[in-house]
Amino acid sequence: MSGNRVVVIGAGFAGIEVARGLGRAGIPVTLIDRQNHHLFQPLLYQVATAALSPADIAEPVRKVLRGLESVEVVLGEVTGIDTAARTVALKNGAPVSYDYLVIATGATHSYFGHDEWSDFAPGLKTIEDAREIRSHLLLAFERAEMSRDAAEQKRLMTIAVIGGGPTGVELAGSIAELARHTLAKDFHHIRAETATVLLLEAGPRILTAFPQKLSDYAMRKLAKLGVTVRVNTPVERIIADEIVAKGETIHVGFAIWAAGVTASPLGKLLGVPLDRAGRVTVNRDLSVPGLKDIYVLGDLALTPDANGKPLPGLAQVAKQEGIHLGRALARKILRGQTAAPFTFHNRGNTAIVGRHAAVFDFGWWQFSGWLAWWFWAFIHVYLLAGFQHRLMVAIQWAWRYVTYESGSRLIVENTRER
Amino acid sequence: MSGNRVVVIGAGFAGIEVARGLGRAGIPVTLIDRQNHHLFQPLLYQVATAALSPADIAEPVRKVLRGLESVEVVLGEVTGIDTAARTVALKNGAPVSYDYLVIATGATHSYFGHDEWSDFAPGLKTIEDAREIRSHLLLAFERAEMSRDAAEQKRLMTIAVIGGGPTGVELAGSIAELARHTLAKDFHHIRAETATVLLLEAGPRILTAFPQKLSDYAMRKLAKLGVTVRVNTPVERIIADEIVAKGETIHVGFAIWAAGVTASPLGKLLGVPLDRAGRVTVNRDLSVPGLKDIYVLGDLALTPDANGKPLPGLAQVAKQEGIHLGRALARKILRGQTAAPFTFHNRGNTAIVGRHAAVFDFGWWQFSGWLAWWFWAFIHVYLLAGFQHRLMVAIQWAWRYVTYESGSRLIVENTRER
Repeated sequence: MSGNRVVVIGAGFAGIEVARGLGRAGIPVTLIDRQNHHLFQPLLYQVATAALSPADIAEPVRKVLRGLESVEVVLGEVTGIDTAARTVALKNGAPVSYDYLVIATGATHSYFGHDEWSDFAPGLKTIEDAREIRSHLLLAFERAEMSRDAAEQKRLMTIAVIGGGPTGVELAGSIAELARHTLAKDFHHIRAETATVLLLEAGPRILTAFPQKLSDYAMRKLAKLGVTVRVNTPVERIIADEIVAKGETIHVGFAIWAAGVTASPLGKLLGVPLDRAGRVTVNRDLSVPGLKDIYVLGDLALTPDANGKPLPGLAQVAKQEGIHLGRALARKILRGQTAAPFTFHNRGNTAIVGRHAAVFDFGWWQFSGWLAWWFWAFIHVYLLAGFQHRLMVAIQWAWRYVTYESGSRLIVENTRER
Repeated sequence: MSGNRVVVIGAGFAGIEVARGLGRAGIPVTLIDRQNHHLFQPLLYQVATAALSPADIAEPVRKVLRGLESVEVVLGEVTGIDTAARTVALKNGAPVSYDYLVIATGATHSYFGHDEWSDFAPGLKTIEDAREIRSHLLLAFERAEMSRDAAEQKRLMTIAVIGGGPTGVELAGSIAELARHTLAKDFHHIRAETATVLLLEAGPRILTAFPQKLSDYAMRKLAKLGVTVRVNTPVERIIADEIVAKGETIHVGFAIWAAGVTASPLGKLLGVPLDRAGRVTVNRDLSVPGLKDIYVLGDLALTPDANGKPLPGLAQVAKQEGIHLGRALARKILRGQTAAPFTFHNRGNTAIVGRHAAVFDFGWWQFSGWLAWWFWAFIHVYLLAGFQHRLMVAIQWAWRYVTYESGSRLIVENTRER
């Protein structure tokens, strides 16, 4: 191998862009990920609520990077990093040597020390999570239809979403729409449109990353969709179908966890101090203080902006960091140039509340409503990696918009014997 | 309930049509299925070979039958039939009473007494099967790419399809195309296009249900696609990655079972004699001899034609039987008319060998080649239940045809802890 091999761990928004940038410059790259696909995570909630199919928002990594001769893709799980020997250990396969190491393994959901809750309230980070949530959601209605007990039907048709950030708001809104429109005419013994969708938020308002007036707008819109939003309602306990929140016991048919994220455990392998959320504090050029030729970016990194304020854990931050680092590393390797600090350009922070209702925050300007929704839809269709997916998703959205039909309402087994 | 309740078990081609026919006549129907979706099984091999997404060929049963007020859909597993009390017992839920009972639960794969082979060579009957086969197929190539051992790479890139019926031929052809076109540019350490695709058939020729000249055509076309067809090669043993066939041991990366089907075990619940394949012999009006008001159809039934010859286990037979029985039962219930015997109208038996290569057998006429392929594609797009699916599948096919791209190349976990 040459002395310029870059190993990138993680094929999310950040890692893909680093690999792409280096690959275009002809620099040898090994991109390692546990999954064979790059996931368009901002639309994952639509798979969980049966609007899109998994393949609509997931592209094989090999396909995304095809044509970049110097980029090698490895399907593998990283189990160790030896910074002295400059190797990455894999679960199945020989160790991989690096000259430069880039880690972008993102974040996963956190139950704040209550990992046992994950059995009853799964979180949403992967295609498997989304498929599981979809099956549970649809099964809750199927079971209510089978039941002849009114209290049991009411319980089964109570869906709780825990956490009022963008994911929680998006899930609650689209579950309400699923029940009120798509499923409304499907049953004989229940009225799906009477389902209770709860959004439980521990803090005083939802969408705390957004200005107050956008939170207020989202609250009003969710109420209109039929979502019951409860703020200042921290969840204290989850056991099976019982959620205890603020002293009150709520019986639910299904619960989804959208309350917290923690950084990927790979940060721990570096032996550097981590923040409370498990993130690696990096320099403004995304390098790790005290380690040579190692970079961390995306949701795994705590990146300061020019004022020292940490950047938010957003897809657009990860993507811009990836583009920046890909170019900076290429310049460093090819021309020996020092890496420049990363500057984030805010393209607008957004959350979707429901059909024709979104919020946008550009910092200097905020807006909400149907125009925000169309703006959001347009941007997301455009952003989806790969031409086929853009086209498919656009057609499906258009179709669903006209018919209120749902795209992918499959209940599949969660476990196989094999 | 009234005295006219028809319980239909199975939402395949036969069961859906019975429910539809009765529902249109306003007769109360309870349709029971273990799955929430109606599956377009003839295209299942395309999900297994990453060409289509599961949702492209599966429709929620409730959606298919929406608008038929008298039809109730139950997601449930039948565990018993009491012909005296006229009830059907469910695994989860109260027993369901019937006045007329229709059973159309189809067939599953059979390992001819070697059920332990199912661990190493899964069969293809459900969406879960297809997803599992897709993951294993793609993983075999990923593992070959990771390996640095030439013999191991060769083994991993040897895919065996066991059984030379339509499903085996279709699988082998599309796996060869996947390797030679879609995956060909994806890897650095292997050449996916050099994969060995084996089609092992115990009998003297493939596609035995078709005339000799169509078998010959399929043999030639498969060879051209790079499939190694071995006839007179019965499989004697399968243990892990070793297949022993005709005394020879073949080391494979993955094997798929397409060699035999057996009828659904529900036939046994009726207490009537079954044939060797577990099928219920029915009268020409699809009623079961010796049982009152019970009908069996589709792949679970051994239905004689006018000459006493049994009808083949084809989707078109099941569908025509369903349409016939729906109408006949409606006439019987509403007007007391005796059910007429079922007559099968052969719409052409078909198998697809590869891109631009199919065989068609109308009995009085056979043809093969690219025209057969286009004819097949046109018919199957048309047949797909539901407008959205037709459109989506048509677009995906067209897209793949132009680009040799694959639609849904996701590797997902087969098991979840939950």
